[in-house]
Amino acid sequence: MNVELITIGTELLLGFTVDTNAAELGQQLAAAGLRIPRRTSIPDTPDAIRDGVSEAIHRTGAVITTGGLGPTRDDMTKGVIAELFGRPIVFQEDLWQRLLERYRRVGRTPVESNRTQAEIPDGATVLPNQWGSAPGIWLEGQLQDGTSGLVIMLPGVPVEMKNLLQVEVLPRLASRGSGRIIRSRTLRTTGVSESVVAERLGEVDREISPLTLAYLPNVSGVDLRLTAWDAAPGEVDQLLEQGAAQVRGRSADSIYGEGEDDLAALVLACARERGIRLSVAESCTGGLVGARLTEIPGSSDVFEGGVVCYSYESKTTLLDVPADMIVEHGAVSEPVARAMATGALTRLGGDLSVAVTGIAGPGGATPDKPVGTVWFATALGGDVQASRNLFMGSRYEVRARAAQRALFLLWKRLLDLPRT
Amino acid sequence: MNVELITIGTELLLGFTVDTNAAELGQQLAAAGLRIPRRTSIPDTPDAIRDGVSEAIHRTGAVITTGGLGPTRDDMTKGVIAELFGRPIVFQEDLWQRLLERYRRVGRTPVESNRTQAEIPDGATVLPNQWGSAPGIWLEGQLQDGTSGLVIMLPGVPVEMKNLLQVEVLPRLASRGSGRIIRSRTLRTTGVSESVVAERLGEVDREISPLTLAYLPNVSGVDLRLTAWDAAPGEVDQLLEQGAAQVRGRSADSIYGEGEDDLAALVLACARERGIRLSVAESCTGGLVGARLTEIPGSSDVFEGGVVCYSYESKTTLLDVPADMIVEHGAVSEPVARAMATGALTRLGGDLSVAVTGIAGPGGATPDKPVGTVWFATALGGDVQASRNLFMGSRYEVRARAAQRALFLLWKRLLDLPRT
Repeated sequence: MNVELITIGTELLLGFTVDTNAAELGQQLAAAGLRIPRRTSIPDTPDAIRDGVSEAIHRTGAVITTGGLGPTRDDMTKGVIAELFGRPIVFQEDLWQRLLERYRRVGRTPVESNRTQAEIPDGATVLPNQWGSAPGIWLEGQLQDGTSGLVIMLPGVPVEMKNLLQVEVLPRLASRGSGRIIRSRTLRTTGVSESVVAERLGEVDREISPLTLAYLPNVSGVDLRLTAWDAAPGEVDQLLEQGAAQVRGRSADSIYGEGEDDLAALVLACARERGIRLSVAESCTGGLVGARLTEIPGSSDVFEGGVVCYSYESKTTLLDVPADMIVEHGAVSEPVARAMATGALTRLGGDLSVAVTGIAGPGGATPDKPVGTVWFATALGGDVQASRNLFMGSRYEVRARAAQRALFLLWKRLLDLPRT
Repeated sequence: MNVELITIGTELLLGFTVDTNAAELGQQLAAAGLRIPRRTSIPDTPDAIRDGVSEAIHRTGAVITTGGLGPTRDDMTKGVIAELFGRPIVFQEDLWQRLLERYRRVGRTPVESNRTQAEIPDGATVLPNQWGSAPGIWLEGQLQDGTSGLVIMLPGVPVEMKNLLQVEVLPRLASRGSGRIIRSRTLRTTGVSESVVAERLGEVDREISPLTLAYLPNVSGVDLRLTAWDAAPGEVDQLLEQGAAQVRGRSADSIYGEGEDDLAALVLACARERGIRLSVAESCTGGLVGARLTEIPGSSDVFEGGVVCYSYESKTTLLDVPADMIVEHGAVSEPVARAMATGALTRLGGDLSVAVTGIAGPGGATPDKPVGTVWFATALGGDVQASRNLFMGSRYEVRARAAQRALFLLWKRLLDLPRT
């Protein structure tokens, strides 16, 4: 089955918004065996929506739209599409009651314009939106000119679009697919550069044929994406499993996970399995390591807490780093990193700590400590290990890479310990 | 002048690549006074390219394409478009010599397939690419069916596309522009929902005509974008200034900045102007508030530090929150938030602190404290103020919204203080 995508919003055409919904939809639909012959972005004007949707239906028969379902005047998607199908818009009292209930539950008072979110083209199916107030709409039937078509309207807010797609749309579309699918599997590496990963992997891309291998460097490390194109659903997993084994065979020690795996989640799981509690002392990352760990639900059972000691004084008062040590060696130094890691265990508690102190830039560099210099220390009881890295990139990148490195160091220390 | 964009590449439709070229092109062209009525992404197959480009020319007369100009088999843009115009492809010896020189300069050896990069549709203008090996192509004339059209072909590599656009394309297009331009100005609000903002603004979108107003909700709040369409360069700034004043007049207290302004930067600037040092006590946000503040270069001169007190014990040992208070009221409660804010000032130092304690989910809810419940307190010396919010969305969203709210509360307290 083919389906076109239409993302609606003047801000997309003006480049004010990067169209991440388009990528998300593309991945999910391809993985479900649906082909996308075309994607179009149009402004939120009635003419543009009418022409765009009508042409797509005549060309392909099915369309998913995103955007223009909110309560404001520039949200006109459903009105224009209803007209294209010759359907009146009807106010659904039961949908309105459900929306009111949702407003009560989240403690908000709806305003008059919210009533439009209970207006639905006659005969359409409502796709309930638990993540926001604009429901999705599934409209199938004949256009005024007699052509048959399907339009699935989804809200433009990415989290709402994504959840509606997963929960309401893909299950309904699954039965119409071709049978052949595209599927990818991504192995995540960290701690080594793209060229080192490529050198280690060597000629693996020939060995894994017909799979393809793509290198995707980002602030977390280098992701390795294996893709099976036009595969049979019964064979695709084995094909990808074989490819992943080949890649792992050559680069196992830098691979920490797959897909959307987060190193922070892995650290927490490893700590949990080993009965180890964690604490964190951050200077240049300013809370990022703590934020990464606590982003994971349930982190409280192994994460003790953290200190963001940004000023010199706070390093001393909160973590017992001797003031004269900072004067002698500088805040970005091996002794200070070690003292911070030890201080974190003493003050915060926990069995294993990590400390980060560095120069994120753009200011703060000295001749022997360029921007990107970061000292790390991990303390497992009295066993303290320190290391230094030089990270490239913007302040954002240096900090993100340093936070990932801190998690990597915790992970490596945890792997050396036996499970309880 | 109107111009459509066509981004070519199967990767784009599969969602493996986020189409950042589209946003870049949109911004640059709008700023130069060109209007983009539609953007299309198509796979790199001859049929899709032929149909996509032909339809765009018949509809709009001018098209910019990106992608498909490389030396490999799936790079077929220029061949298909040349055919559409009935032009033969000719090998340009002088272009080939220039490409060879470039290969020598960067120390690479061209392979046989690179010769195709010196093949150009007859009569087209070469747009020299100093940043890569595939030149851009400017082709203007009549299609085989007699329709007049302009196609500007640019490479898909973002840095090459961007530079060719700036250096070769925009100057050539400028002379055809109407002289009328599109310009936007964005006001950023936080602390109120989209529908409340819309209610406060009421009929302002009529008053600001011919400007348009778009509501852009995100985890930071609701951005309000005013856009002047088809404006004279000499008048556009005043027009936007008047519109911004109208919007500010109705919703001033929730507007914290413009454009890409970050509330964290604003908080730091306000604190600096008032000689106030800040500290932070975070539970559910786990370091996000600290990370937001320290993302801004130079934050160390007003940011004292933070404590991530994730466990009950750490709230007591690091911030002096009485253990029996946590037992009696729960960690997510007004007394605990107040005690955390006070403890942050005592333990970390600083003049103004904010404390955040809440239930980010998905676990941890109780009947009277649903997921998304967050207590905040700010302490300015002994003057402590507390407030509660209920945030919607995923764990990620609850945390991001809570961090933004914490910054908002700091900002509001700072605004009440005189500048030094």
